[in-house]
Amino acid sequence: MTEPRYDVIAIGNAIVDVMAACQDELIEELGLSKGGMTLVDSARAQELYDAMGPAREISGGSAANTLAGLSALGAQCAFIGQVAADQLGEVFAHDIRAVGIDFDTPPRDREPPTARCLIFVTPDAQRTMNTFLGASQYLPPVALDAEAVAAAKVLYLEGYLWDPEEPRAAMRRAIEAARAAGRKVAFTLSEVFVIERHGDDFRALIEDGLIDILFANHLELAALTGESDFEAGIAALSPKVPVLVVTRSAEGAVAVAGGARAEVPAEPIDKVVDTTGAGDLFAAGFLYGHVNGEPLERCLRRGAIAACEIISHYGARPEADLRALMAEKLG
Amino acid sequence: MTEPRYDVIAIGNAIVDVMAACQDELIEELGLSKGGMTLVDSARAQELYDAMGPAREISGGSAANTLAGLSALGAQCAFIGQVAADQLGEVFAHDIRAVGIDFDTPPRDREPPTARCLIFVTPDAQRTMNTFLGASQYLPPVALDAEAVAAAKVLYLEGYLWDPEEPRAAMRRAIEAARAAGRKVAFTLSEVFVIERHGDDFRALIEDGLIDILFANHLELAALTGESDFEAGIAALSPKVPVLVVTRSAEGAVAVAGGARAEVPAEPIDKVVDTTGAGDLFAAGFLYGHVNGEPLERCLRRGAIAACEIISHYGARPEADLRALMAEKLG
Repeated sequence: MTEPRYDVIAIGNAIVDVMAACQDELIEELGLSKGGMTLVDSARAQELYDAMGPAREISGGSAANTLAGLSALGAQCAFIGQVAADQLGEVFAHDIRAVGIDFDTPPRDREPPTARCLIFVTPDAQRTMNTFLGASQYLPPVALDAEAVAAAKVLYLEGYLWDPEEPRAAMRRAIEAARAAGRKVAFTLSEVFVIERHGDDFRALIEDGLIDILFANHLELAALTGESDFEAGIAALSPKVPVLVVTRSAEGAVAVAGGARAEVPAEPIDKVVDTTGAGDLFAAGFLYGHVNGEPLERCLRRGAIAACEIISHYGARPEADLRALMAEKLG
Repeated sequence: MTEPRYDVIAIGNAIVDVMAACQDELIEELGLSKGGMTLVDSARAQELYDAMGPAREISGGSAANTLAGLSALGAQCAFIGQVAADQLGEVFAHDIRAVGIDFDTPPRDREPPTARCLIFVTPDAQRTMNTFLGASQYLPPVALDAEAVAAAKVLYLEGYLWDPEEPRAAMRRAIEAARAAGRKVAFTLSEVFVIERHGDDFRALIEDGLIDILFANHLELAALTGESDFEAGIAALSPKVPVLVVTRSAEGAVAVAGGARAEVPAEPIDKVVDTTGAGDLFAAGFLYGHVNGEPLERCLRRGAIAACEIISHYGARPEADLRALMAEKLG
């Protein structure tokens, strides 16, 4: 086994976030699912964009956000995801490469355009996401760079991308490539609706021992295990995955690994501006500690600190110097 | 003379700002003119973008920013400017319409793409702008809606747009249309380099009595008048324009109108994040007061408050509720 070239390689949706502040009334008026992620088609995306206030565009995508955090902390990362050959595709590619992440998936020179996520941020800092997947869902299995996957300590996959057929096939191939090379597979469940659609697949992956590190929030834990009680969910799932990490918003996070358990509270914060990316950055902080062999609690603290930074401003990509921030907080 | 339909109609560059934080070292390395605005061609724009950190895209353009501020305060506004039929053009059009501004210039269905301004923001909050004018410089004189110009109390023009030939012709036509309808013409000098190139044109417009309201900062005042002393510059220029407004960054602003003079300090602010748009929003606040017949000092206070809001965050479009902010500060 050669020395890994990457700490983490991820396959994810290549999305540009289009973010605007709004009042709760607009969420109701538009019939949006507050706090959730809804897939929308082109016509609905246009309708929502027309109703949206002045926006800002910031690169997003769940796994891509996680890599941006990892890279900011000093990890070597690579991303696989599909953009179209258009301006938003250029924006996504620029922003991910600008933080030092290798991104070599060629843009797709056909319709539909690059994915975008229309995000309405209410005064309570909650984000309501409406994703037009566009080119992202056409990531072909051939885009999978098995050599690169084999060259990373951890393969990181987002549940969101399990929905479209081609990327799902790419992810299955990636899991095989990672296991064949003796690498670890990390998976984030992403959203309750994804579990409702693909929970059987996810449970099978877990039962087959193909997931080494599983990220979930408390709602996803309940949806996957069928246990509405948090502790019952942890008890049901933790024996089946080597590392289980469950976040629960303002109540902090729990990790269980090899029988050991650690817990951290959420980091104190003056003002939550926009919760977009909180889970993605929690995963970034945790994974950074994990690939560096740090104790479970320190991994969780890193997750909490990264999540805290991301919710202090608009957008799901870090703005502060995460490395300096962690050095200051963790010593 | 029919009742004006608009308070302010503006002709300006239709630009999307691409903004990233950077250290001073990068400004030097790239040979940028710190704090200034430099026009760049497509190749240089690509070179700078490649060197830029992860960015966010926020609609900009000097006169468009001013209108966004005016509209947020409750003024009726219209914008004339040229985007291309591409994604950034859609972003610009969405953002300006989303704040209630009429924008009917059809997108241009050819190369070059929509204008963008690559803005490097240093830790001192100074912005260094590099503008690829793209489609914006091809605003054709026929795009000028003379009927709409005649229907606005004030025609607002940015000096930046005096540089390319077609928009310059459009602006000259607009000035004629405004004067013929008995409307006022407001002009912002924009940048010292614009004055270096077109100072003779600007001085002729002023001598011919075609400018009713002139906006400048202290550097532009010196460049236009040839007077390095601030008071000498004011004394030289103020008799030639009915309303002269000169900002001087942290030292506040001065206005002279019909022999009367008013002065305000800059608004106190905790932390300046990004100075992009400070002058544009000063003009917005001032013009709002002016079209509503407010006293000179109150117009200046509005300018200072709007400028203070814009420098407290990234981007040159208001984020706070400017109307509420002014009600709170001005009573």
